[in-house]
Amino acid sequence: SICNKVLDLTLLLLKQNNFPNAHSSPPPPPPPVDHFGFLENRTFQQRYLIADQYWKKDGGSILFYTGNEGDITWFCNNTGFMWEVAEELNAMLVFAEHRYYGESLPFGNKSFSDSKHLNYLTSEQALADFAILIQHIRKTIPGAQNTPVIAIGGSYGGMLAAWLRMKYPHVVDGALAASAPIWQFEDLVPCGVFSRIVTNDFKKSGKGCSESIRNSWEAIKRISSTGNQLPMPPQHLCSSKNCISQFLKDPSLSDKLLLQNIFQAINIYYNYSGVASCLNISHTATKNLGEAGWYYQVCTEMVMPMCTDGVNDMFEPEKWDFQAFSEECFKLWGVRPRPSWILSVYGGKNISSHSNIIFSNGGLDPWSGGGVTQNITNSLVAIVIPEGAHHLDLRSSNPCDPESVRQARALEVHYMKQWIGKARQRH
Amino acid sequence: SICNKVLDLTLLLLKQNNFPNAHSSPPPPPPPVDHFGFLENRTFQQRYLIADQYWKKDGGSILFYTGNEGDITWFCNNTGFMWEVAEELNAMLVFAEHRYYGESLPFGNKSFSDSKHLNYLTSEQALADFAILIQHIRKTIPGAQNTPVIAIGGSYGGMLAAWLRMKYPHVVDGALAASAPIWQFEDLVPCGVFSRIVTNDFKKSGKGCSESIRNSWEAIKRISSTGNQLPMPPQHLCSSKNCISQFLKDPSLSDKLLLQNIFQAINIYYNYSGVASCLNISHTATKNLGEAGWYYQVCTEMVMPMCTDGVNDMFEPEKWDFQAFSEECFKLWGVRPRPSWILSVYGGKNISSHSNIIFSNGGLDPWSGGGVTQNITNSLVAIVIPEGAHHLDLRSSNPCDPESVRQARALEVHYMKQWIGKARQRH
Repeated sequence: SICNKVLDLTLLLLKQNNFPNAHSSPPPPPPPVDHFGFLENRTFQQRYLIADQYWKKDGGSILFYTGNEGDITWFCNNTGFMWEVAEELNAMLVFAEHRYYGESLPFGNKSFSDSKHLNYLTSEQALADFAILIQHIRKTIPGAQNTPVIAIGGSYGGMLAAWLRMKYPHVVDGALAASAPIWQFEDLVPCGVFSRIVTNDFKKSGKGCSESIRNSWEAIKRISSTGNQLPMPPQHLCSSKNCISQFLKDPSLSDKLLLQNIFQAINIYYNYSGVASCLNISHTATKNLGEAGWYYQVCTEMVMPMCTDGVNDMFEPEKWDFQAFSEECFKLWGVRPRPSWILSVYGGKNISSHSNIIFSNGGLDPWSGGGVTQNITNSLVAIVIPEGAHHLDLRSSNPCDPESVRQARALEVHYMKQWIGKARQRH
Repeated sequence: SICNKVLDLTLLLLKQNNFPNAHSSPPPPPPPVDHFGFLENRTFQQRYLIADQYWKKDGGSILFYTGNEGDITWFCNNTGFMWEVAEELNAMLVFAEHRYYGESLPFGNKSFSDSKHLNYLTSEQALADFAILIQHIRKTIPGAQNTPVIAIGGSYGGMLAAWLRMKYPHVVDGALAASAPIWQFEDLVPCGVFSRIVTNDFKKSGKGCSESIRNSWEAIKRISSTGNQLPMPPQHLCSSKNCISQFLKDPSLSDKLLLQNIFQAINIYYNYSGVASCLNISHTATKNLGEAGWYYQVCTEMVMPMCTDGVNDMFEPEKWDFQAFSEECFKLWGVRPRPSWILSVYGGKNISSHSNIIFSNGGLDPWSGGGVTQNITNSLVAIVIPEGAHHLDLRSSNPCDPESVRQARALEVHYMKQWIGKARQRH
């Protein structure tokens, strides 16, 4: 993969030969484990990847990926957009790993052992790591002193890109925050918006789809209350685009047939080889994500209320129960969530005094419900990609791309060029 | 004093009777000791003072004093400017005490016992306290929901006012940062600028003044090397304005006479009653300042390099020795200073993307050397008061005020009104 070819610079492993443009650049001082207090004076090794083959000292730029909850090579490999625009923007690419993920573990294999070691896993600490890393790169790579920097990220990484611009505008000149649900907190958006968008996606995908799923919950209850086991149907492997829809097109089937069809549909995602006899739906496709770390973050500051009502969505009704959530977090980690802190520190909906941020969102992406989908000012701009899912714009271009994502990417480049140009004038 | 008459609201002592406009306002949730981590889950009582007699719900404003290193009643009593403009701005006045000072001690009398208890004494934690307090006031005082807020502070409090606007622009609509040396860090200004301005003040105050002091250092060495004691002169009490200058007008006197004159001059400040037989010059007039807390801050993030050369200033030459400073800090507190952190977190000289901050400085004030004395943009404005000392503009008006400070105050009100008006339009 492309990101195994780029330079993997742990802080103490900078190799001169691999990085010709930066031969006089010493490795950065390792970031402190705690930027916001002086008692904990240990430092740690933060991993980041650099690709400088497209970078030009004069008229160039730095595109800085604000790593999210996972191994940075994974995000590096899945952010083809940056590679594709690097030449046009004469850009140095930097992919910075988020502390507590991948190989950037502040306390090695003890990092997740208890709430004491997890105490420095916050977005504020991560932003400070990024800010200091950028300052170091600018200071030590010859010719990079005044190079404009654009922060780029998707999902949680998109939030970080936006917040980095908000909190450290002296460090990054603009941000592309792709599919960043910065408003999926407290009561900024209805807690059911996510489920509603998922339901709409199913509705769009075929007649009867969302109704089949909505009807299935009661069917499960009725069948399981009889004590009977549901005989599983034979596997119908299929590869067509509307495969799932085919199984879900008739919501009025008998309980037994309805559930057998749903099982078939689930198999397409969880058992496409057809060899699994039992499906573990807690296994996801994204095993590179650091799930323990993320769940700690969700239990502290990244509290995103979710609910379903079974009316506006196809799920079993479930209210958002903060108390229960808080108890669970306390049991798991010994900490209590602070649900309003993110609003206090990053501004909630009152962000109009900031500038130079693109918020892009896909219409099919349920996270778009917590995203910024309308322009706030002429430099806090929203781009909506109706046919897009979760940060499709950051992926490599593909012949099957809808026209809307092509346009979105072109517009993103347009804004980035504009901000890079203005930043260059200032220096 | 006026500030004993305003309401002293510790978090748990809100009295309905004393605060008629806020009768339905519950006391704020006590702020967490650690905003940036979830392991330390204790809270503490933060003191703040509110005066609401001039406040109007419609068309009013909130002037919020960002308390600095001392008892908040002291700053409340010494910031007459806010009281004098309150009526014109229909302003509610809030004076918020900085954590670890006055009565706002996170761990009571253990707060200064060791580096563990001192770990939460940082500007970032203080800003978060202020932001959350303002949000609470807006949320709970009927009619205050959309009231524009201006942060005001002097000296370190002035830095906090400016930084509060930079980091929490969704919370405060503008800031008046009086005599705030936000650039007195690392190498942003020459380390000798403070001493040079002090020397210039002495030069301006009378012929021979600064030379007398410059010559005194060698005179002290010569006399002390003889082993002789210097007979002290009789007290010459005097009250005229140029009293100090009279003693310092002839730098060419013999060592003995020069030092006797300098002693006389020092007496005017440290022994105006004439009864002290020995002067303890480590006693200052500002005993309300929390010196232990401030010295901890200086030893961690508020590292302001100072030096003298004896040529451009009247002091004994002394280089800035960061290593020695760091050792001293480690001995005293068990922590090491991080001299570049303030630049990383607050932007150093690259602050042009922020808005709505007045930086006022007095020409006589040595701290103006680290201040912003030229406009950066049309909403990051500098006001220089040539005849002013340390945040004279925040003091009560006085018949002896120079014209420049009257104009400065008028201009400050002009900007505040403008920002308050714009903020009101947005809501």
